[in-house]
Amino acid sequence: MQLHDLIIEDAILMELGVKSKLEAITELTESLSRSGRLIKKEEALSSLLAREQAQTTGLGDGIAIPHTCTSAVHQPIIAFGRSSEGIDFASIDRKLVNFVFLILSPKSSTELHLKILARIGHLLKTEGFINGLLNAQSKIGVLEVLKEYESSLGEIEPPDDLPSVCVAGAGNGGLAMASHLSLLGCKVNLFNRSPERLLAIQTNGGINVTGEINGFAKLNVVTSDPQEALEKTDLVMIVTPATAHYTLANLLGPYLTDGQVVVLNPGRTGGALEFTETLRRIGVKTYPFIAEAETLLYACRITNPAQVKIFSIKNSVPLATIPAYHIPDVLPSIKKVLPQFTPGDNVLKTSLNNIGSVFHPALTILNTAWIEERHGDFEYYHEGASPSVAKILQEIDAERVSVAEALGIKVSTAREWLYLAYGAAGNDLYSAMQANTGYSGIKAPNTLDHRYITEEIPTSLVPMASLGDQLGVPVPTIKAIIHLANILHRRNYWAEGRTVERLGLAGLSVQQIRRLVEEGKLT
Amino acid sequence: MQLHDLIIEDAILMELGVKSKLEAITELTESLSRSGRLIKKEEALSSLLAREQAQTTGLGDGIAIPHTCTSAVHQPIIAFGRSSEGIDFASIDRKLVNFVFLILSPKSSTELHLKILARIGHLLKTEGFINGLLNAQSKIGVLEVLKEYESSLGEIEPPDDLPSVCVAGAGNGGLAMASHLSLLGCKVNLFNRSPERLLAIQTNGGINVTGEINGFAKLNVVTSDPQEALEKTDLVMIVTPATAHYTLANLLGPYLTDGQVVVLNPGRTGGALEFTETLRRIGVKTYPFIAEAETLLYACRITNPAQVKIFSIKNSVPLATIPAYHIPDVLPSIKKVLPQFTPGDNVLKTSLNNIGSVFHPALTILNTAWIEERHGDFEYYHEGASPSVAKILQEIDAERVSVAEALGIKVSTAREWLYLAYGAAGNDLYSAMQANTGYSGIKAPNTLDHRYITEEIPTSLVPMASLGDQLGVPVPTIKAIIHLANILHRRNYWAEGRTVERLGLAGLSVQQIRRLVEEGKLT
Repeated sequence: MQLHDLIIEDAILMELGVKSKLEAITELTESLSRSGRLIKKEEALSSLLAREQAQTTGLGDGIAIPHTCTSAVHQPIIAFGRSSEGIDFASIDRKLVNFVFLILSPKSSTELHLKILARIGHLLKTEGFINGLLNAQSKIGVLEVLKEYESSLGEIEPPDDLPSVCVAGAGNGGLAMASHLSLLGCKVNLFNRSPERLLAIQTNGGINVTGEINGFAKLNVVTSDPQEALEKTDLVMIVTPATAHYTLANLLGPYLTDGQVVVLNPGRTGGALEFTETLRRIGVKTYPFIAEAETLLYACRITNPAQVKIFSIKNSVPLATIPAYHIPDVLPSIKKVLPQFTPGDNVLKTSLNNIGSVFHPALTILNTAWIEERHGDFEYYHEGASPSVAKILQEIDAERVSVAEALGIKVSTAREWLYLAYGAAGNDLYSAMQANTGYSGIKAPNTLDHRYITEEIPTSLVPMASLGDQLGVPVPTIKAIIHLANILHRRNYWAEGRTVERLGLAGLSVQQIRRLVEEGKLT
Repeated sequence: MQLHDLIIEDAILMELGVKSKLEAITELTESLSRSGRLIKKEEALSSLLAREQAQTTGLGDGIAIPHTCTSAVHQPIIAFGRSSEGIDFASIDRKLVNFVFLILSPKSSTELHLKILARIGHLLKTEGFINGLLNAQSKIGVLEVLKEYESSLGEIEPPDDLPSVCVAGAGNGGLAMASHLSLLGCKVNLFNRSPERLLAIQTNGGINVTGEINGFAKLNVVTSDPQEALEKTDLVMIVTPATAHYTLANLLGPYLTDGQVVVLNPGRTGGALEFTETLRRIGVKTYPFIAEAETLLYACRITNPAQVKIFSIKNSVPLATIPAYHIPDVLPSIKKVLPQFTPGDNVLKTSLNNIGSVFHPALTILNTAWIEERHGDFEYYHEGASPSVAKILQEIDAERVSVAEALGIKVSTAREWLYLAYGAAGNDLYSAMQANTGYSGIKAPNTLDHRYITEEIPTSLVPMASLGDQLGVPVPTIKAIIHLANILHRRNYWAEGRTVERLGLAGLSVQQIRRLVEEGKLT
């Protein structure tokens, strides 16, 4: 990572037409906001001003570096402004300011932030740099000057205490996760089973990311060799369809090491259990922590072979480990880069809080003809979830909640979850779904050959139904949906899916299941 | 329990001026609703009509018994109507109906419901009974006839599978719980440490209960002898201030038996842990399950020494046991009478979900002068929680959530809880509290010598602060409130309260604490 990777081109202002510190900071912040780089503009501004109040960032010699760590950004970003007249920044040498570097880093990236400040400090002392900036004729010119003077300095070394990460999966989520972590300073290895998917990224030397995260994300290693991918990494982020977890456990298992943290993003239902059970079966003798996230952190889409767009990043994603008591040990290191992760109790909770399982398969299957005849051209969560469809979703939800209750676990109902996740309130599931403006404009899938069925049935509904059967909880509606999916796709999702056998739970009592989840073993 | 205990005097209609079944059922349901006996009128009505659709309850000989089990009532209730002209009930003998007994029982009380139907059937076959009803001149007259013909039959025997209960505590909550369970058919022993409190109830032979539950609740034993109180009971409902739990563990402990379920209503923070640790210290060798409820089921108040008014009954109260994996074993038996209880994961969850601790102590202490000078004559949760007070509540809440996170447990924030419990939505705690219409009209306490401090500080904030200290989580705001309470009351709440030592958690690792909670022991 270098400064010119972090500077936002739209936020290079060649002539700041203002005189005061407040105006200058406001205008640069506005330009970052207009370029879509700020989650919360007011928070960024008030945090910058609070920092100024503590001590001015007017360093003297016509330079000011207003800066702060704030939850208003997801990655470090820089705005740059010039003023030929000069701005009163209350500098220590009382001179007017001609150059402003405005730097925002995520709240959790305090050490990286210091390294960025140090790099700017170094450049400002380098002969010719300031003159170079003064004479630059355009935005591109400013970037060229930065590149020139940084070339001999190499990369800004990421702080030692950031986790090294292997991201497994080069689909939408994998590229989003890999580029986000890279732009936060992590050393990132990207793994994908089939090498074809990696070609464009290898050629490109990294990933171009746009949206809530923006920039060019360099990668340490891009490979389809599992051993190379995992080498010297602390954190393994698996970001694939959950149907691939079983294969990945077989592929990666032999190279996992003690204390390495494997996170399934997300686990759907029983991901961490299936992964753990698979490692046991293939005889892995090391002691990695297997974790699952309740949902994927990103809404994102690949826009080109080496390019991904991140539409949004969730505020809070519960994460649970096996053994469960290690959550507080594992989280601090992850939160250094992804503070969005929160403790998720245990993997029964994250697995049974899988709300997608309530919505997606039934919502898709019950709209089969509409999807096939009109290629999904209707509002999926609003028109597709008509009052009667919502009744069926509510039944599926009740069965899911009952399976959890049989394990002594309380999970949110789908209706409650709509409020917790989106602030959408309603007296029943139907009205809460209709009240969720976040669903507006989301069209139905345009085909039935969609992960809402091919992924969610075997990795969400099958494990719930199988657990229900073992625990004596009636799950007739979930089974009906699985049955319909089997017919639609002429497959046997029961055989492919995560039954209690695949999860390593067959024949276990409630006590034993809870013990396995808490401690990773039965005795 | 006898029929005349269940019949609602305001719902005895001496002359039903209607001709059709639908009108008769509607009018009797209306009369029950007007008397305040129905939680949801429409639900009762639709459930009754669905039952009629399955098969008419016009039994012939001018008698009809419309009836159903429904969540519209909290106890079995009966309405009675006469019609001299006769009502077309589609009876099996096609005769018009002159007497209607309308019976509603709680959804969970199906067996008791059958016994009530059987008792009516028995009476209808008894010579003279129908003539007695026909000639009764008044509501009192109807009740007299019932009493006369039932006298030789004795009590309706409660179903064998209902739990026998000891209710410990003869305060507001204890009397509410005892009378509710009695009117659901349970054999109830009432225990209170000081015998004075019991005198009026012993003289009265039971408890008069009004409000959402209504009637005269007979009790099996009313005693201050712990051995007598616990004898042959399956379920021990402790309904006292949490500060009494420690003493009760010492008093009741020696008489607890294997498999007996002790429920603290509520446990506040660490109730079940403290109870368990106290039993261990005094050397109890039996194996009861110790459980805690997240909150008290009732809003209620004693109105006279042997009389209690139940204002409302909560829909859903999480309950967790030690060992936690026994929740699904323990709940079904409790749910036969109190279906409001739901699984609460484990006692760390119920203890740290203690939202009262966030609101009450700080809300009271920060309004000290207003309470003392104006005797609490202001809206406690609305005016008392001004924007700045709410900021402090939010800090306390954040500290509570952090303590839970250090144990790997996710708890609802107070803001989220306001929606889950009351449907009150808002962007921050202040606006969510203001949005909660359920708080309207609730005045502040009129004294500082109130359980919001004397109970909540030692049994809620002290255990949270003590856990925070042990886990290295900063809890400065909680400690500040405890400190202020110590000054206000010239007491040392730290010494009185539930520190990690009292909870049996001192020096334990996160893994050990979770193991203790899951399995009730460390190895």
